Formats: sequence, C-alpha cells, structure tokens
Amino acid sequence: MNPTSTSMAFLPKVIYRNPLLWLLALVPAVLVGQMLIPEEHTLLFVLSVFAILPLATLLSHATESVAAKTGDTVGGLLNATLGNLTELIIALAALQAGQYVLVKASIAGSIVTNALFMLGASFLLGGIKHHVQEYNRVSARFQAGLLFLATIALLIPSAVAERNSAANASFTQMLSVSIAVLLIITYALGMVFSLKTHRELFTSVHSPETDEAPWPAGVALAVLAGVTMLIALVSEVFVESVQHATLALGMTPAFVGFIVVALVGGAAEMVSAFSGARKNRLDLSVGIALGSATQIALFVAPVLVLLSYVIGPTPMDLQFWPGAVVMMLIATLTGALVTNSGRSAWFVGVLILMVYLIFALTLYLLPSQGL
Amino acid sequence: MNPTSTSMAFLPKVIYRNPLLWLLALVPAVLVGQMLIPEEHTLLFVLSVFAILPLATLLSHATESVAAKTGDTVGGLLNATLGNLTELIIALAALQAGQYVLVKASIAGSIVTNALFMLGASFLLGGIKHHVQEYNRVSARFQAGLLFLATIALLIPSAVAERNSAANASFTQMLSVSIAVLLIITYALGMVFSLKTHRELFTSVHSPETDEAPWPAGVALAVLAGVTMLIALVSEVFVESVQHATLALGMTPAFVGFIVVALVGGAAEMVSAFSGARKNRLDLSVGIALGSATQIALFVAPVLVLLSYVIGPTPMDLQFWPGAVVMMLIATLTGALVTNSGRSAWFVGVLILMVYLIFALTLYLLPSQGL
Amino acid sequence: MNPTSTSMAFLPKVIYRNPLLWLLALVPAVLVGQMLIPEEHTLLFVLSVFAILPLATLLSHATESVAAKTGDTVGGLLNATLGNLTELIIALAALQAGQYVLVKASIAGSIVTNALFMLGASFLLGGIKHHVQEYNRVSARFQAGLLFLATIALLIPSAVAERNSAANASFTQMLSVSIAVLLIITYALGMVFSLKTHRELFTSVHSPETDEAPWPAGVALAVLAGVTMLIALVSEVFVESVQHATLALGMTPAFVGFIVVALVGGAAEMVSAFSGARKNRLDLSVGIALGSATQIALFVAPVLVLLSYVIGPTPMDLQFWPGAVVMMLIATLTGALVTNSGRSAWFVGVLILMVYLIFALTLYLLPSQGL
Repeated sequence: MNPTSTSMAFLPKVIYRNPLLWLLALVPAVLVGQMLIPEEHTLLFVLSVFAILPLATLLSHATESVAAKTGDTVGGLLNATLGNLTELIIALAALQAGQYVLVKASIAGSIVTNALFMLGASFLLGGIKHHVQEYNRVSARFQAGLLFLATIALLIPSAVAERNSAANASFTQMLSVSIAVLLIITYALGMVFSLKTHRELFTSVHSPETDEAPWPAGVALAVLAGVTMLIALVSEVFVESVQHATLALGMTPAFVGFIVVALVGGAAEMVSAFSGARKNRLDLSVGIALGSATQIALFVAPVLVLLSYVIGPTPMDLQFWPGAVVMMLIATLTGALVTNSGRSAWFVGVLILMVYLIFALTLYLLPSQGL
Repeated sequence: MNPTSTSMAFLPKVIYRNPLLWLLALVPAVLVGQMLIPEEHTLLFVLSVFAILPLATLLSHATESVAAKTGDTVGGLLNATLGNLTELIIALAALQAGQYVLVKASIAGSIVTNALFMLGASFLLGGIKHHVQEYNRVSARFQAGLLFLATIALLIPSAVAERNSAANASFTQMLSVSIAVLLIITYALGMVFSLKTHRELFTSVHSPETDEAPWPAGVALAVLAGVTMLIALVSEVFVESVQHATLALGMTPAFVGFIVVALVGGAAEMVSAFSGARKNRLDLSVGIALGSATQIALFVAPVLVLLSYVIGPTPMDLQFWPGAVVMMLIATLTGALVTNSGRSAWFVGVLILMVYLIFALTLYLLPSQGL
Repeated sequence: MNPTSTSMAFLPKVIYRNPLLWLLALVPAVLVGQMLIPEEHTLLFVLSVFAILPLATLLSHATESVAAKTGDTVGGLLNATLGNLTELIIALAALQAGQYVLVKASIAGSIVTNALFMLGASFLLGGIKHHVQEYNRVSARFQAGLLFLATIALLIPSAVAERNSAANASFTQMLSVSIAVLLIITYALGMVFSLKTHRELFTSVHSPETDEAPWPAGVALAVLAGVTMLIALVSEVFVESVQHATLALGMTPAFVGFIVVALVGGAAEMVSAFSGARKNRLDLSVGIALGSATQIALFVAPVLVLLSYVIGPTPMDLQFWPGAVVMMLIATLTGALVTNSGRSAWFVGVLILMVYLIFALTLYLLPSQGL
C-alpha cells in the first residue's frame, strides 16, 4: 500500500469526476506562459487566477480527507495554515518589491474576506440547501473571541499612534516590532493549545457524512504537499502580473490588495468551507473562516513585519489606513455577533455578504489618493 | 359579519374603557387648527404631539389583535412597518424642505431611540411588574445580529469618507446611492425571509394571554389602515410646526431631530412594546424594538436617499455627523449585548435608559454649531 | 465569644502559615520611613508597594470568609468596593495636587486592568490547574452588559466633544458634571438591585470548597475594617513617592497612572480573584473583575469629578485621551466577548494578557508629549 502508487491510480479518477479539475491544464500553461510571453500581464493574470482554482479544489479534497480522521476543526486549522501559505507567498513577493500599501491591504483584506465573505457565503450556500443549520456555538464563540483579541492586538499601533503621526515614526516602528514578536509567541502558544493540551475542544460533534470515501492518509498528505507547492509557483506569476493587469482593468491598488489578492489567496480555504456548508457541517466552515482570519493576524502579519527587516527595502510597520482599521474591526465584531446563536439561515449569509459587497464597492469607488 | 359595521359597534366601547383614547378629540382639533390658526406654531406642535398618542394606542390595539393570530414577531414586524411609516412621512416633509440635517438626525435618532429607549423602557416597565423576565434569546440574538449588520452597512460612507471630506463629495454621493440600492434589495430579501421561507422563526413560544379578546381580523385591519392615514395627516401638521415651536422652546435642531421626532414618530410602536413587556411577552417588545431599528436602517434611510433625487432640492448622501455615528454604533452594540442572555430585570432597563438620557442630555447641551 | 479576642488568637496562626504575610512588617516600616526619611522617594515607593501586598492578602482572606456566608458574587461586590477604596484614596491624593492627567489615567487604567489583567490572569492561573473551567455564563453576561453600559456612559463626553475641543470647554464641563450625577444615581440603584431586589441573581451555583475553615463573621469584618484603614495610610505614602520615584525609574506619567497605580490599587481584588480561579470558583473571579471595573466607572470616576469642585484647584471633566478611550472600549468589549461562552482554558488567559501587555508596552514606549 505505497501511498504514491495508490495516488497514481487514485487522482485521475477524482479529476475525471470533477470538471473543475480539468482547469489543472492551466497550471503548466501559466508556468510556460510566464517564460514565453512574460509581458502579456492581463492574460497571465486571468490564467493564474483560473489555475489556482482547481489546485484549491484538490487541496480541499485532501484536507477533508485528513479532517475526516482528525475532526473538523483540526482539519480546519490545517486547511487555514496551508491556505494562508498562499497569502503569505503573495505578500512576500509584494514585500520584496517594497509595495507596502499592497502588503498591508492584503493583510487587512484577508482578515475581512475570511471573516465576512467566507462566513457569509458559507451561510448562504448552506442555507439554500438546509432550512436552518445548527453548529457548535461554544466552539464558534471561542474562536470568535480569539479572532477579536488577535485583531485588537494587531490594530493597537493604528489606534494609538494615529494622533502622533509625523514626529513619532520611530515609536510606531518600535511598537510594531515588539507587537510582531508578541503575536508570534501567542501563535506558538495557540498551536500548543489547539494541537496538544486542548485538542479535544477542536473536534466536531457531527459525524463526517462525506459523499465519497476519504482518501488514504498517505495520499492526502502527499497531495497536500504537492498542490501547495504548485499554488506557490502559480501565485508568483499572479503577483508579477496582478499590478499591471489591474491598471489595464481600471482597478485601484486598494481594491486589488484588499479584495482580489484576498479572494484568490483564500480560494483553497473557501472551497473547503463552502463544501462543508453544503454538507451541513457548518462547524468546519466556521472553523476555517474564523481560524484563517485569526492566523493572518497572529502569524502572517507579524512574520511580514519581521521579514521586512531582512528582505524589504525599508522596515514595515503595523500602521493601517483608518478605513481598513474600521473594516477589520467590523469584520471581527460581525464574526462574533453572527456566530453567537449557533444557528444560521440563508438571510444571515445575505446580510454578511451585503456588508462585504459594500466594503468592496467603497474600495472600488475610492479615489486612489485616498489610501 | 361585515367588518365595518362590527367596528361601528366595537370601537366606541374600546375608547370608553381607555381614557387615553379620549385624546382622539384632538385629531380634528389639530386638522381644523392648521387651517384656522396656521401661525400658532407652538400650540399646534403641542396639540399634534398629544393627538398622535391616542392614534398610536389604537394602532397598537389593532396590531396586537393581528399579532395574536400570527405570532408575536410577525405582529412586531407589521407594527414596526406601520410605525416607521410615521417616521418616513415626517422625514419626507423635512426632505422636501431641504432640511437634511433634520432628516439625518431623525434617521439616527430613530435607530437610537428604538434600540435604547424602547428596549430600556420595556425592560424597566416589565421588570417592575415581573421579577425576572425570560425571552427567546436565539430569536433576539438573530435580530440583534441583523440590526448590527444593517447599521454597519448604513454607516460605511461616514466611516470611510471622513478623511476625504471636501474633495470627494461626488465619491460620497455615488457610494450613498449604491448603498441605498443594496439596502433596499436586502430589505426585500429580508421580507421574503421573515414572511415566507422562515416564517416559523419569528413566532413566539409564549401563548398570548391577552386580558381582552382580540378584535376580529377585519376590524383590526380596517383600524390599522384608517389610523395610519390619520397619523400621516397629523404628522404633517407636526412637521410644519416643529421647527418654529422648538426655537420658541429653546431646543437645538440636533435635539429636535434626534429625540423629539424619533419619540413622537415611534410612539405607536412604543405603546405596543411597553404593553407587551407589562404582559410578560418580552419577545414582542424586543422584536418591535430591534425590528423597527433594523427597518429604519434597511428601508427608511435608503428610500429617503433615493427620493432626495426626486423631491429634494439637492441629492442627500449618507454621511452622518461623527457624534451620531458613535451613538448609532453604541445603540446597536447595546442591543446585541443586553439581549444576549435572554433574561431581563428592572436594573438592565435603568442602565439602558441612562445611556439614552446621557445621549439626550449631550444633544440638548451641545452648542448648535456643533452639528 | 468576643470577636476581637478570637482574632487575637486567630490572626497570628494565619500569618505564620502564609509567608507572604511576613511582609506585614513593612507596613510600620513605611509609616515610620515617611516620617524619618521623607525625601527617599524611590525607597518609600518600593516599600509601599510591597507593604500593600500582604494587606491585600489579609483583606482577601477576610472577604472570602464573608463571601463563604453570602455567596460568591455578593462577596465579590464587597471585595470590589473595598478594593476600589484603595484606588479612590490614591486618586483623591492626586486630585488634591491637581494632577488630573494622573487621576484620569488611573481611572482608565483601573477599568482596563480589572477587565483585562485580572480576568486574563484568573483564566490563566485557573487554566493551568484545571483543564477547562465552567462558570455561570448568564451571570457573567449580565455583569459584562452592565460594564459595557457603564463604560459607554463614562465615555460620551470624550466621544462627542472630541470635535469641538477648544471653544466648548464649558459644554464639556457641564456635560461631565451632569453625567457624574446620573452615574452616581445609577450606582445607588444598582446597589438596591444587587443587594436587595435581585440578591439571588448574584449567588453562585458552586459550593465553596475552601481549603481552610472560614473565619468567624466578627473577625472577618474587623479585619476588613482595620486592613482597609492600613491600606489607606500606606497608599498615601505610595502617592507621595510615586511621582518622583517613577521619574527616577524612567517611566512616563501615562504608564504610572494607567499601569502602576491600577495594579497596586487593585492588588487586593486580584489576590481574591486569582485565589478563586485556582480553587475552580471562576464565578468569584469574573464577578470581582467585571464588578470592580463597573464600580470604577459608576462610582469612583463620578465621585472624583464632583469632589474636584471641592478639593481640586480647578474642576475636572470626563474628557479622556483618545488612546485611553480606545483601550477602555476594547477592554469592556473583550470582557463581554470572552465571558460569553461561560467556559475558559489557559490560552484564553494568555490572549487577554497579551492584549494587556501590548497596552502596557504602548504606554511605556509612548513619547510623553503624546498624552
């Protein structure tokens, strides 16, 4: 039962059954296109977006197989970590180019997109199929509390230093680095908590009920690793093309970082979350959405601040544009309030998506000097 | 069993039993006074306020009769819609006169008055009679979540555009119109949700226990329609007189719009909510208070923005005074936090009313150039 | 069974068993030192801090004895009142010296320290010993709601008057006094509620399970009174020395007021709250933390505003530094969100403490002109 040989016989069947996976053909197209026609930015941008989608689907199937053996929320955490790897890789490329507005917009956008779009679309997609969905509200409240605290910690420099803008750049910088270190320590302690001391808190009460047999653990882990690497390669093409392409398509940098990068970067997690919602496993969806947003705040953002000292042209701080601060706070409070009752129906999803749509619209209409 | 002939025999008895309804005599007095002594603004202002009260009481009785047949929360929604009609009519008159400060103050004030004063007074009045009151906390949390999201959507232009004030008037205007359209779509979907697909979520667990037999459905509906029209007529007199009268009484425009218009406009709903609280049907009270505030945000406010293009001298946007933004956010967060436990006692009502009183005091003391 | 003679035989044994109480020897040392070497500020500062700790421990034992007879939350309220007496005395000394920045920082800091540090450390200390701790979430939500409303009421002048700073000093002053009166009325009504009409809401479901027999009521009450007086005397020395000492130790006034005064002033309550958490009586800890923060907002702050007219050089208003407003709001929202589920584990404590640590770090790094 060699996992690799099993996957040789296994993956083609899976791909054959799911038409979305035919888009996998775009992955080599993107990588070859990047070498042959690197100046065709708009084409490469569109190709890379559609190449990430089937990879995200595969990642989702693999993660669900692991989740079926470890419980929904550990699977959710695993998924969020790997999904956020995409966001981290995209942000690293922008960091290296010194595009700090884009980096910060993608951090803020990932938190907002996870907590609003992913949660809202899960509620809507699940609610269309199931009349009222119940989920483990104690676990959801716990995760919403963690997300609130993580976001607050991330936003202190923006909240406090706002008044002392010009003169106190060194204060903001020192505070940002200190907070980045504290956030990473917190993240490490959180891993100890969720994977070691209180693992049982993160298992779901629902039984899996998957419509297909889960993959063997070896196959699932191999696919997880391989697909993650392919996403990283395609993401690089995406980042190189996204800036020129969006200018051609008439979008602002705020909109690109906040909405486009966040949506593409989070595609893998979204496929899992939406699939969980359709299967009435809303615990999985809520765990992915809130857990992923929490990990952006506790892990991706501070790592980017610290790495800016190594790979960036100048150090990056944690001071966000006031509108982004408001949107992040609203997103985390929304996550806390809507998961409070442990019940969902389609209209809750509509309302959350409407708030997200209004955010997107605001950033789309915003004059570019507004950032 | 002709409903009209039944109401002929029915209403006089109801009026005779309730001394408040004797004030109905003021309704013709106001309408005649408006024609004979239109310049006596302070007198007409006071008369119209006291003429709206008995109409509100009748509306409340009629709505409770309908509510008894359809469940508390559908009755609550019905009540909120008709009660908000008063607020809409008052705001329309101010809109036509180009008094946008008054219109916006009445929108903000209606949300705050519903979520704080109506909820707080219901808790206090119910708590004086009943030691601890329990209500359906899942339904309350659900409604508080809707109110939070509706208010957030309404406040995006104020939160985001604050920094870009002078230069970006056209951005704020375009954003306000787009959001108005999205809010009305959301409102329509919300009606489908609460009246069609998930009607059962909005029925109360408590049995009615009314102290008098409910009116026949035909009578109730006829009274609902007739009394609503009378309120509209008296409201017009109220609006014409309110501006001159309050100057004579030493109030600021902020106070008039935020407190006086909101209290008079919401009188009908308050009578129902308070009566429900006294009868230990706090589900009805919470449903009216939160539902009414939600409908101001999702329906009344966007309709006024869109109508400003038709009947106003210039288009109106959704940018509110920062103090009003803070008060609306506090009111909706308060609504979410205090209904969280599903239990109430008199002191909760005292605390909520105290916050409302402090808001009112602030607006009363505020220098008028502060708006 | 004269209580005093009993305490003669009783206290020495208690002191002998608890090494921390040996620090009681510092109490006469501080009082004598203040007379003999009043210019040794740094020494007196350090001595007074370590002299307050054993007094706080004794107060905690006495309060727990009373709590054992009256239920956790009434004991918690009692504890909070006496603990806040320390904060009140410290603030009164600063008020008399016209040090309003220090007074306001200590008000804000006490609310934040109670709602974040005390709650977070209780969750962490309790969570290290007990895997998952459950507590009465209805009571916790109720208290978190009260704290939210009390804080909001306190912060209205800061939220609304921000924009009208220079010209409207008289508006802010009048509003502050009016709100102070309303807050004290609310506090009195709250006492009626928690001690008279709804006393049963504030008793815990857990049985005491103390590891030692509770003291007789007479001894407990006598120790409560005597130790409170000693804390008051030592606190005076603390206040006189704190300003010079912290300059010598390189701290800013913001940090001293917000963190040092608040931690020392709340030491007594913390010992009780932490001891309750270790004994798996988290109801007691949450009651002390949230109740104490509420009483700072509803009682200590308004009393200081009113007394500033009698003993201060000029009247004090309730306008806080914007960073302090943000921290108070975050602290009360955190209190509400984390107590929502009625369950706790060690990592929740870590996260809350991390937010507190980030606040402290921000104030420590903040350039002193930033206040």
